[in-house]
Amino acid sequence: MPAPTKFTTYIDEHADSFIKRLAEAVAIPSVSGEGPRRKEVFRMGSWLEGQLNTLGVKTKQVDLGKHTMDGQEYQLPPAILGKIGDSPNKKTVLIYGHYDVQPANKSDGWDTDPFTLVEGDDGRLIGRGSTDDKGPIMGWLNVLEAHKALGLDLPVNLRFCFEGMEESGSEGLDDLIKSEAAKGKDGWFAGVDCVCISDNYWLNSRTPCLTYGLRGLAYFKVTVSGPARDLHSGVFGGTVFEPMTDLITVMSKLVKSDGTILVPGVAEMVPPPTKEELEMYDKLDYSIEDIEDAAGASIAVSSDKAKVLMGRMRYPSLSLHGIEGAFYGAGAKTVIPASVSGKFSIRLVPPQTPEQIEPLVQKYLEFEFGKLNTKNKMTVENLHGGKPWMADHKHWSFEAAKKATEAVYGRAPDYTREGGSIPVTLTFAESLGVNVLLLPMGRGDDGAHSTNEKLDKSNYIEGTKLLGTYLYEVGAISQNA
Amino acid sequence: MPAPTKFTTYIDEHADSFIKRLAEAVAIPSVSGEGPRRKEVFRMGSWLEGQLNTLGVKTKQVDLGKHTMDGQEYQLPPAILGKIGDSPNKKTVLIYGHYDVQPANKSDGWDTDPFTLVEGDDGRLIGRGSTDDKGPIMGWLNVLEAHKALGLDLPVNLRFCFEGMEESGSEGLDDLIKSEAAKGKDGWFAGVDCVCISDNYWLNSRTPCLTYGLRGLAYFKVTVSGPARDLHSGVFGGTVFEPMTDLITVMSKLVKSDGTILVPGVAEMVPPPTKEELEMYDKLDYSIEDIEDAAGASIAVSSDKAKVLMGRMRYPSLSLHGIEGAFYGAGAKTVIPASVSGKFSIRLVPPQTPEQIEPLVQKYLEFEFGKLNTKNKMTVENLHGGKPWMADHKHWSFEAAKKATEAVYGRAPDYTREGGSIPVTLTFAESLGVNVLLLPMGRGDDGAHSTNEKLDKSNYIEGTKLLGTYLYEVGAISQNA
Repeated sequence: MPAPTKFTTYIDEHADSFIKRLAEAVAIPSVSGEGPRRKEVFRMGSWLEGQLNTLGVKTKQVDLGKHTMDGQEYQLPPAILGKIGDSPNKKTVLIYGHYDVQPANKSDGWDTDPFTLVEGDDGRLIGRGSTDDKGPIMGWLNVLEAHKALGLDLPVNLRFCFEGMEESGSEGLDDLIKSEAAKGKDGWFAGVDCVCISDNYWLNSRTPCLTYGLRGLAYFKVTVSGPARDLHSGVFGGTVFEPMTDLITVMSKLVKSDGTILVPGVAEMVPPPTKEELEMYDKLDYSIEDIEDAAGASIAVSSDKAKVLMGRMRYPSLSLHGIEGAFYGAGAKTVIPASVSGKFSIRLVPPQTPEQIEPLVQKYLEFEFGKLNTKNKMTVENLHGGKPWMADHKHWSFEAAKKATEAVYGRAPDYTREGGSIPVTLTFAESLGVNVLLLPMGRGDDGAHSTNEKLDKSNYIEGTKLLGTYLYEVGAISQNA
Repeated sequence: MPAPTKFTTYIDEHADSFIKRLAEAVAIPSVSGEGPRRKEVFRMGSWLEGQLNTLGVKTKQVDLGKHTMDGQEYQLPPAILGKIGDSPNKKTVLIYGHYDVQPANKSDGWDTDPFTLVEGDDGRLIGRGSTDDKGPIMGWLNVLEAHKALGLDLPVNLRFCFEGMEESGSEGLDDLIKSEAAKGKDGWFAGVDCVCISDNYWLNSRTPCLTYGLRGLAYFKVTVSGPARDLHSGVFGGTVFEPMTDLITVMSKLVKSDGTILVPGVAEMVPPPTKEELEMYDKLDYSIEDIEDAAGASIAVSSDKAKVLMGRMRYPSLSLHGIEGAFYGAGAKTVIPASVSGKFSIRLVPPQTPEQIEPLVQKYLEFEFGKLNTKNKMTVENLHGGKPWMADHKHWSFEAAKKATEAVYGRAPDYTREGGSIPVTLTFAESLGVNVLLLPMGRGDDGAHSTNEKLDKSNYIEGTKLLGTYLYEVGAISQNA
């Protein structure tokens, strides 16, 4: 049961008005990470709730409390929960999205005002939030509008969970989801059969994809301290154990140039890929050139495409991010820093958890530090972490998304895992115990957190059709079930 | 021929007026490194010239031109050259000092206003420049005043070279010294037999010393670059060669925790200490506890005192100062920096020169980087350098200073080498081809560049006697010669 033709026709015919809707949303600079713009996040939430109500969705705002940012206390933007449809014969799909955006200023290097949606000759819709994540949210509103205007029944019951703090750590959301889930049939998410999140991107700029995995993270700070204050290398060089020397040495023991993780036990936790998996990576519409184009240099760790893609999606990786407390400016300064902290993180894949990784890192660093026979002191902190997530990509929700992709784009989607994290994914999966599907609307080159963020018009319009068609395919399953 | 008793008596009797002179000098905030205070450096130069003229010294101001600081052009403070005495039967001693000071603000943590000289109950004369370098310059003025007041002939001819940019790189001074030296008998430094610089400190707070060596420096920046821009470790971790990983690895190959330099050929250039030298280090009034007190922690590389002291004075050392381009803030950021530059420097001792060291470092880093088989690129820059300096500490100028120390302090001085650099020392030694003596006035705990900089009253007054007595001992040599 694909979507009715009049639905897809309506979408095509109303493209201009849908772009206007997106322009209205982009014009509200709902930057959650900047105190002075916090009120705009609230304004965006109210605007969104108004749209939902107009389109027949029952909503409630949930106060998530206060938090402290840059030393000042702020009210958190509300979560906006929505509900439309209650038929016991239909599947219930929970939609997640976020209505806040990353910071943006013209002076960062934008070609146009970031909060004015501009349509380029090439079809790019340029503006902050166009692809991350206002475009996808507008897609859902467009689907609702089409059904209301055409007098069509929705093929599923819908629940919505929109937040305004995703770009600033999703504060308060986990607690809300867990508490609503704990209410069971009295909670807002009662009866939810699956979750659909449209907040990531195609691997490339050509091929639609469904995403079924995200890596987790374990972030570490290793501090080596010695003298009571910074010392002058002219006076102390050659007389004392220097913290930087010790820190650099232990940091050098963590990972090899080619990315091999040297912390014993970490890589070993991950099973080798199956033949089926290897074939899947080989088939992905992505090349070494795509990776190197994105990085802007020929620096891929291998010429084996499946190996490089698995490096991002299927294996853990360890990156050294920097050092706090050392000299970091331009020029030459002859300081012996008193206390220096190396920052590094390990991206995790199933079955790894931060809880399992932390003692391995701790023990190994202590072992390597012990070998130095230094009189400096070392401490290791686990700054934050998150578990990896992986969904069953043969679940009926993924099957529905696959059929919808074939219907709209005329081709089967790629199946991808992402190298980064979207923590709420795991919260939904664990709290509700249902399948979560990541169904991206935008392309890999959209520049979600960069200057000149864009969403291609074709991705916006075809993506709106995709979201609607996905609901019909889910509906067809419940009809057949 | 020690100094006449009436000279030393005069110094004791006029201590209060000498402290007042120092207070006047300290009250002029001649901070060379701060644009808005540049005019105060000029005011200080004029004040100093006035004092010299009043005390019978013929002077000239030398315009050193302009320079750029923090993007703005400034006039350099003048060098003030002075001359008194022209007897062919006397030795001619050239005195160097600097009349500019380090920045200081009460809010940095000073207990008192830094530009008001305060005398503590414990005899400390607290104020910016008290010990670095206004105290020693006032010492010379005090000597001149005593001779003028007492109608005594100076035992030597004196030449003075005072600059106002020492704390900001001594800009323009090298050229002046070289050009005056090149003028030979027509230059301001014609006939100079030796140079005396009072701009360093005792090793401790107990024992006067004479300093006959300074280490040189070779400062390096090693840059590893890969991607065209910073990358997100979620997206790229595990797929590309990361510059930080490569940089940390090559930096870890430079020096061991105990300070052993791993660059082949560097340590080998330095001959082992003679038995006589070892005995000298053993006899120095300095302990491991002194080093550790100064560092504020028990982190000396050895419990062997001579070894630790030689680590500062007689051997090269390699310190890792920091990394430019990596994440350096607090908190957690999952960046893969695109280009990172490690900063490190090697303190040099004779016979090492920066020119010899640079190719050794370059070759070794390329060798170690080559082993990585990375696709990132590495460059090595030598940011700046200076040769080490060492004087003959059995020269008659040192003998004179030794006798003067015994006369004033009742004990033989320690003979020390400094771990840091005073570049003008080398310029005088090489341009004039004469012995340079470093004859410190202050103590090791004076805190020259720190808050609450001080000069002990006893060091100021006895130090003034020491400077005068040194001239008499030099004079005695010329009488005997």
